[in-house]
Amino acid sequence: MDYRDAGVDIAAADAAKARIRRLARGTFNAAVLSDIGSFGGMFRPDLSRYAEPVLVASTDSVGTKVKVAAAAGVHDTVGQDIVNHCVNDILVQGAVPLFFLDYLALARMDPERVEAIVSGLARACSEAGCPLIGGETAEMPDLYAEGDYDLAGFIVGVVERARALTGERVRAGDHLLGLPSSGLHTNGYTLARRVLFERLGLDLHATVPELGSTLVQALLAPHRSYLAVLEPLLERDKIAALAHITGGGFQGNLPRVLPPGLGARIRLDAWTPPPLFRLIQRGGAVPVDEMYRTFNMGIGMVAFVSPADLHEVEHSLDRRGERSVLMGSVVEGEGVLLE
Amino acid sequence: MDYRDAGVDIAAADAAKARIRRLARGTFNAAVLSDIGSFGGMFRPDLSRYAEPVLVASTDSVGTKVKVAAAAGVHDTVGQDIVNHCVNDILVQGAVPLFFLDYLALARMDPERVEAIVSGLARACSEAGCPLIGGETAEMPDLYAEGDYDLAGFIVGVVERARALTGERVRAGDHLLGLPSSGLHTNGYTLARRVLFERLGLDLHATVPELGSTLVQALLAPHRSYLAVLEPLLERDKIAALAHITGGGFQGNLPRVLPPGLGARIRLDAWTPPPLFRLIQRGGAVPVDEMYRTFNMGIGMVAFVSPADLHEVEHSLDRRGERSVLMGSVVEGEGVLLE
Repeated sequence: MDYRDAGVDIAAADAAKARIRRLARGTFNAAVLSDIGSFGGMFRPDLSRYAEPVLVASTDSVGTKVKVAAAAGVHDTVGQDIVNHCVNDILVQGAVPLFFLDYLALARMDPERVEAIVSGLARACSEAGCPLIGGETAEMPDLYAEGDYDLAGFIVGVVERARALTGERVRAGDHLLGLPSSGLHTNGYTLARRVLFERLGLDLHATVPELGSTLVQALLAPHRSYLAVLEPLLERDKIAALAHITGGGFQGNLPRVLPPGLGARIRLDAWTPPPLFRLIQRGGAVPVDEMYRTFNMGIGMVAFVSPADLHEVEHSLDRRGERSVLMGSVVEGEGVLLE
Repeated sequence: MDYRDAGVDIAAADAAKARIRRLARGTFNAAVLSDIGSFGGMFRPDLSRYAEPVLVASTDSVGTKVKVAAAAGVHDTVGQDIVNHCVNDILVQGAVPLFFLDYLALARMDPERVEAIVSGLARACSEAGCPLIGGETAEMPDLYAEGDYDLAGFIVGVVERARALTGERVRAGDHLLGLPSSGLHTNGYTLARRVLFERLGLDLHATVPELGSTLVQALLAPHRSYLAVLEPLLERDKIAALAHITGGGFQGNLPRVLPPGLGARIRLDAWTPPPLFRLIQRGGAVPVDEMYRTFNMGIGMVAFVSPADLHEVEHSLDRRGERSVLMGSVVEGEGVLLE
C-alpha cells in the first residue's frame, strides 16, 4: 500500500506545483527574496517611507461560491475573488498590500484545475501589486466530495500608523458614499444557491433575461477590488472610514467602524439593487432586512466622508469612472437604520 | 426564506466569535494594535534590532488529521498542531514568529467545538510568543460533511537578512542531526488512516499494547514546535540549515535546502522509528522508501551542522533535554540516499 493507493497523488502534486511556481513568479517584485517551494515566502518590505509602519493582516475564503465554480467548471474567477476580497479587507484600515498566500484544498489534485485557480490568483495579485509568495495546495479525498475544493487567502499589507482607519475619525453628519459591487462578490452564496437552484429550479447555464446574461456569468462575476479608486484618496486623508460589505451585510459591517454613540442611516431609495439581488429576494421571499444583512445589494464598499471632503471625493471617484452613490449618513444613536 | 433556513446560523457564529475573541486576547502582546473583529489584525513590529528585517510567511493545514480529531471528538490538539507546524515552517529559514491567523471551515458552527479548536491555537500561540491576531471561521454545510471541518494556519515571522537560512551555507561533510518528533505530526494521515482503520480494522479508542496508549492518543499527539530548542542556536549562527520533515518526508524536504551538487546520506540504523510508524509499515505492507517519503519516522526536524559546530550544538540540545540523533551527513552528489 502506498500514498497513491490511499488517494493522494504526489506526482500530480509535483505537476501542479510546477504550474503554480511559474504563475507565482509572474507576480514577484523586487521585495520577494525567495522562490515558491521554499518553506516560507521571504519578503523584504521597503518601509522607508513610513514613520511608524503597521502591518495589517487578514484571511478569508471564497465561501460556497466555490460550489458554483465547481459546478460550472470555471475556476479562474474564484482566484480573483479571494485576492480582491482580501485586498479590500485591509484597505478598509487604510493599508495597501505587501504580499499574499493562498490555501487550496481539493478532493483531487488536478493540475489543470489548480493552474486555472492560481492563474486567477496571479492575475489579481499582479493587478494589486501584491506578490503571491507562498501557499499550500492539499489533496484530501476524505474531506472533500469529488469535484469540490475550498479556497482561502491570506494577505499582509502596511499602513502608516497615524493614517490607519479605525473608525475614530467618524463623526455624526459624515456622508456614506457607496461604491458599486460587481455582483454578489463572495457572500451569501449558500442562500443564493438555495433560492436560485432549489426554489426557482433555474439552470446554471440558462440565460436569464432580466440579468442580461446566463446565471453562471452573473454568479461568478469576480469580486472587485477598490484599491485603485480609493488609494489616492487615502493618501490625501480624504476618507474617515471604510466598510467592506461582506458577510453580515450592511448591519454587520457598518457598525465595525461606528464609534460608540453613533449609528448609520441608509436611504434604501438612494439606489436600485441590481437584478440578481431582486431575483433572489423575490424568488426566496427573503425579508428586506435579511437581504441587506446577507448581501451587498449592489454596494460593495461604503466610504465615510466628512461634509468638507465630499465634493473632492466625489470628483476624484468620478474622474476614475467610479459611479458612487450618496446612500446615507452617520447619525447620533446606535445601529444601522434602513429607511 | 432566510440564511438560517439555508443552513447558515449567524447567531451561532456570533457566539463562536465571542469565545474566539476572549481566547485570542490572551495571546496578545504590545505589538498588537487591533482587537479581533476588526477587518484585519494590526501589528506594529519592533524591528529595531534588525539591520535588514525580512518577513517570512507560510501557510499550511492540518491535513486529514482533522478526520481523526472529528471522529474522536477531541478538537484542541489540531489547534496546537497547525500553529506549531507553521512555527517550524518559518523556523527552518531562521525566522521567529511575529503573528498568526487561522482559517477554520466547518459543516456546522458549533461554538463549543470552535472554542476547543481555538483554545489549542491560543495555547500554542502563547507558547510561541506569537499572537493570534485574526482569522476566518466559515460555516459551509454544502462543502463539508456533518461533523467535518478543515483547519489552516498562516504565520508571519522575521529574520535578519544576513542570518536567513536558505541552504547556501550547507557544505559536504555537514552532519545531519535529527530532532525527535512527537508522532505523525500533521502528515501522512490519509495513508495512516487507511492502514490502521481499514486494513487492520483497529478501533480508534482501543489500547494498542505496542503503542502503550490508545490509538487516538497516539494519532492526536500534537505536532511539536522546535522553536525553543533551536532559537538559541540560530542566534549564535550554529545551524547551517534546517529541514522540517513534513509532507514528502525525507526525500521531499531535505533537497529543499541542499545546494546543487550536494546530496544527503541517511543511516537508517541511526535510530529506531517509534512503534506507531512500524505498525503502519507492517500493517499496510508499505515499502520502506514510501514510509520515509510520507512520514517523519520519528524525526520531525533535521539540523545541518558543520563539523566545527557539532559538539556545541549537541551540548546545547542536550542541556535543553533534547535527544538528538546523528543520522547522516551531506555528501557530494544528488538526492537523498537511505542506507
